[in-house]
Amino acid sequence: MTNWDICYFSDDGRVLTVLDQTQLPMVERYVQLRNSTEVADAIRRLVVRGAPLIGIAAAMGLCVAMVNGESFFEAKRIIGSSRPTAVNLSWALDRMESALKNFGIKSTDTYTSSSDVIIMLQTEALRIKEEDAETCRKIGQFGSRLITDGMGVLTHCNAGHLATGHYGTALAPIYSAAMDGKSFRVFADETRPLLQGARLTAYELTKHNIDTTLICDNMAASLMAAGRINIVFVGCDRVAANGDTANKIGTLGVAVLAKHFGVPFYVCGPLSTFDSHCSTGSDIIIEQRPGEEITTMHYAHPMAPEHVKTFNPAFDVTPHNLITGYITENGIHTTK
Amino acid sequence: MTNWDICYFSDDGRVLTVLDQTQLPMVERYVQLRNSTEVADAIRRLVVRGAPLIGIAAAMGLCVAMVNGESFFEAKRIIGSSRPTAVNLSWALDRMESALKNFGIKSTDTYTSSSDVIIMLQTEALRIKEEDAETCRKIGQFGSRLITDGMGVLTHCNAGHLATGHYGTALAPIYSAAMDGKSFRVFADETRPLLQGARLTAYELTKHNIDTTLICDNMAASLMAAGRINIVFVGCDRVAANGDTANKIGTLGVAVLAKHFGVPFYVCGPLSTFDSHCSTGSDIIIEQRPGEEITTMHYAHPMAPEHVKTFNPAFDVTPHNLITGYITENGIHTTK
Repeated sequence: MTNWDICYFSDDGRVLTVLDQTQLPMVERYVQLRNSTEVADAIRRLVVRGAPLIGIAAAMGLCVAMVNGESFFEAKRIIGSSRPTAVNLSWALDRMESALKNFGIKSTDTYTSSSDVIIMLQTEALRIKEEDAETCRKIGQFGSRLITDGMGVLTHCNAGHLATGHYGTALAPIYSAAMDGKSFRVFADETRPLLQGARLTAYELTKHNIDTTLICDNMAASLMAAGRINIVFVGCDRVAANGDTANKIGTLGVAVLAKHFGVPFYVCGPLSTFDSHCSTGSDIIIEQRPGEEITTMHYAHPMAPEHVKTFNPAFDVTPHNLITGYITENGIHTTK
Repeated sequence: MTNWDICYFSDDGRVLTVLDQTQLPMVERYVQLRNSTEVADAIRRLVVRGAPLIGIAAAMGLCVAMVNGESFFEAKRIIGSSRPTAVNLSWALDRMESALKNFGIKSTDTYTSSSDVIIMLQTEALRIKEEDAETCRKIGQFGSRLITDGMGVLTHCNAGHLATGHYGTALAPIYSAAMDGKSFRVFADETRPLLQGARLTAYELTKHNIDTTLICDNMAASLMAAGRINIVFVGCDRVAANGDTANKIGTLGVAVLAKHFGVPFYVCGPLSTFDSHCSTGSDIIIEQRPGEEITTMHYAHPMAPEHVKTFNPAFDVTPHNLITGYITENGIHTTK
């Protein structure tokens, strides 16, 4: 993966090209987006996903829509309605609107998309992208200090290169530590139902020659109990003022396990993910997605890189102090 | 599902017919087993699965092998080697050997499979089956007392009708409470990687008109945090003398969550699952299964009943007190 750029303008600014993440890891296909409906659809269908990348694609998509004749506010409305939970989406679009106003255009103005305006907005969108890449590099540098030789590192979902402008957030410490020459092992939760861990995290980490073992979500407890996971890094979609964090389904479970087994648990994300308008986690709107994602697999072919390692015990051991009682033909037995 | 019998002899005793659970819920296919290799293979490939049913099928399979000319001890060795973790397998086979010895046949004897011996062994195998059905009924009666109207009940994997001689173990309290006219909702973990929850538990519970919602394994934490799960029932493959319990991968994680959220967690199983030779959980051998189970889905078509309900949030909320720190471009922030 020499190409770190998975979201870019065409030379004439009429097309936004993005890597189609619904087809990974089997097919590396890029799709071209030309209007706000296509951009919104790509975000909604997870063609483009990962909170920071959603913000970048939204801002860049807004520019493409305008080059092709749409009005700023209509395009902003359509793209902004695509996913409710990711704060980066509205953050990036609001920042574009601020840039517009700072350029002297009021929200009530009827205006034509002059090339001056468009070049200014394109510059702002690319600035969002570059700032995100820099954020990734910094998160990586800070986080990599926590990784030492021989560690087992757990991550959930994909908050990596594929989710951001560069190294990712949760995966940034991992890339950074690997570049520092540290020797460690990553365990990647497959992350049902959409398998971002199996399809995306396992894909990008193995591409970068990082020692990666794919597990089912329900196997992390066994690894922690065996002392094989020493630190957890996850991303975040929105962090409330009190620190409550919304992230991919399953993150809460990993956090409870980490606490129980005494494993440090770190949330990685840019400041744009921190939402001061949201006082606690209970204020965060949680998106409900179609049940077919659980009942039906999307692919009739393998859904993880061919050579990724796996950890696949058929059972685990529950210590008695976690069991309230035993029901047998003799009744209910408690251990207390 | 009027037919509760999914493991039975042919009239001449030459064939053991079992429901092929690898094809559920899409195809209800029965397979015919005629020798110890076929029986062992069926157990190994999870055509027959669930600790009690494995014991029943092993004992009955031993009889079929003998009717077709195999020696008792060779057939016992082959069937006994099929899966290391389920104690019911060796328990049932040892019980058959005891019956043989009580009949006056010593382990070192060379003997022909007289019809007397075979009829005695068939009777013993059917007794194991009937005793298991009775055990299921009793577990159901005891466990159903814990279920009250309006409860949310979580179960993991499939310790149901399909795993036993009758109502199952973990699902027995559910069937029993439903027959008592109680109104409650069951949440079934899909149970990756082999999806016994999606394929088997969701299948058998919806067939019996029990209000069942299928979730991915990583969603239970969200439901518990929301107070929507009030009790957990799981089965067990082996219980050590100190109460440590081996069960399907993911059970440990559910137990940690249940403890954290104050939800009662019950292990259901027959006494034959309790292994006094095993002092603690660390003595239990854990089977490692092929990685392809994680990397590749078995089916190109839907893998759960068409009309089962689902609970499918895209994210969950991790309270700040579970988060060790936040890594941003400004450094690592802790909440303490």
